[in-house]
Amino acid sequence: MQDHQSFKTTPSSGSYIYGRNAVLEAISAGRAIEKIFIAYGSEGAAIDSIRQEARKAGISFTTADREKFGTMERELRAGKNAAQGVIALCSLGVTLDLQTLITNSYDDTDTPMLLALDGITDPHNLGALARSAECAGCSGIILPSGHSSPITPTAVKASAGALEHIPVAKVSELSVALKDCKSAGFNLIGAAGESARSYTDEYNYDVPIVLVIGSEGEGLRPNIRKLCDELVKIPMSGKIESLNASVAGGILMFEMRRQRDSLSL
Amino acid sequence: MQDHQSFKTTPSSGSYIYGRNAVLEAISAGRAIEKIFIAYGSEGAAIDSIRQEARKAGISFTTADREKFGTMERELRAGKNAAQGVIALCSLGVTLDLQTLITNSYDDTDTPMLLALDGITDPHNLGALARSAECAGCSGIILPSGHSSPITPTAVKASAGALEHIPVAKVSELSVALKDCKSAGFNLIGAAGESARSYTDEYNYDVPIVLVIGSEGEGLRPNIRKLCDELVKIPMSGKIESLNASVAGGILMFEMRRQRDSLSL
Repeated sequence: MQDHQSFKTTPSSGSYIYGRNAVLEAISAGRAIEKIFIAYGSEGAAIDSIRQEARKAGISFTTADREKFGTMERELRAGKNAAQGVIALCSLGVTLDLQTLITNSYDDTDTPMLLALDGITDPHNLGALARSAECAGCSGIILPSGHSSPITPTAVKASAGALEHIPVAKVSELSVALKDCKSAGFNLIGAAGESARSYTDEYNYDVPIVLVIGSEGEGLRPNIRKLCDELVKIPMSGKIESLNASVAGGILMFEMRRQRDSLSL
Repeated sequence: MQDHQSFKTTPSSGSYIYGRNAVLEAISAGRAIEKIFIAYGSEGAAIDSIRQEARKAGISFTTADREKFGTMERELRAGKNAAQGVIALCSLGVTLDLQTLITNSYDDTDTPMLLALDGITDPHNLGALARSAECAGCSGIILPSGHSSPITPTAVKASAGALEHIPVAKVSELSVALKDCKSAGFNLIGAAGESARSYTDEYNYDVPIVLVIGSEGEGLRPNIRKLCDELVKIPMSGKIESLNASVAGGILMFEMRRQRDSLSL
């Protein structure tokens, strides 16, 4: 409650804090901030300080073009220029460091399932994948900081609340994180349309698993693909080349569960 | 091409025709129109004629409140008041009458699969379900005219183009359409979270099948549920009660396919 009350004293709207001083103070106060957006062309001592303090605190920041920043400003429903070229997105969801995520996942079961996302930039897809992962019994999600959607209010909404339950580990390098998972006993299963192996082929899924899903357009990056112990495809019947990423993820996670459950019959 | 050229001569934007005379002329010319939206409070002889001619032509029309109509007007990117309170959504996708859809589906295979949607009002979900259906090899979609999303440009976009390939039968009463499917040899499988039967339980899916999916909030209506030969659930693991409708549909369609394929091994 106390945090909530102090939150009220800074210019904020839902999960955003805006305005140069307010954002600078939020960083200094150690608030959990997901990302800072600086409008293209914003300059001055305060902006320099924000960049500097964000860097020190390990908070990522990005320059947003006029159109994108304008869209965010309208979402704030504050006065024109109230943001003074700076908007901070507060951390949403349950975030953990990777090692804690791995350790906790083994508390649940001997054969935990994790979902790793490689290049999912659309917050709707991130949310929908989190929803499917939560429903399929995954213990957590591994999400790279770069080239991926942050956990925005849109993602939380698209997750139907799943992102408020399922823990997420933000990692700077997905390949390093996946190697750590391997060391911790996980098998890496990648979704890859060009694989010869169908996702329905029998496989020993009764082990700790990380399911790795790439972006709809690009699929898994080559270095991520190489790390995988197995690549599986979902055979397509029609003229459309691919399923929506969250549908593909759901089909794969539930098939792994089906094969696991059939072993215990 | 000729149709495309004549289309250019009426005030139109993408899949919409707007303005009182333009819409009235479009109806008279027998253009395939999905739905006509009339802004709340719009009155006069021209509006009366539009209602009258639409009714004669069997085109559904609806009154849109100021906010909804305003959103549509902005999408047109035409001048203010260019719509004069009337916007017609042209028919998109490949629409067939139900009997033709059924007949055509048997041309493809002895055991066709159709998808029927009960109360899917979100065009994103409609599009995503059509995409999954196309990828899973369904022969078509049965879509009620009322209490359902029409095939809007948003739905077509969300379908990744699937709605340009997979035929859709628009029906006025889903229960009547489903009875027609039964008479034509189809088994009706309904998705229902409260069913005791898991979707992975073995079932003789090697028959003509209509998979019936309800809305996320409400599920299948009782009269539709009663018509089904079998109800199946997808068991959930987490705290979220349900999957996204398009993910659930994808999981069910691909599991039916898996069970069918395993029979032929």
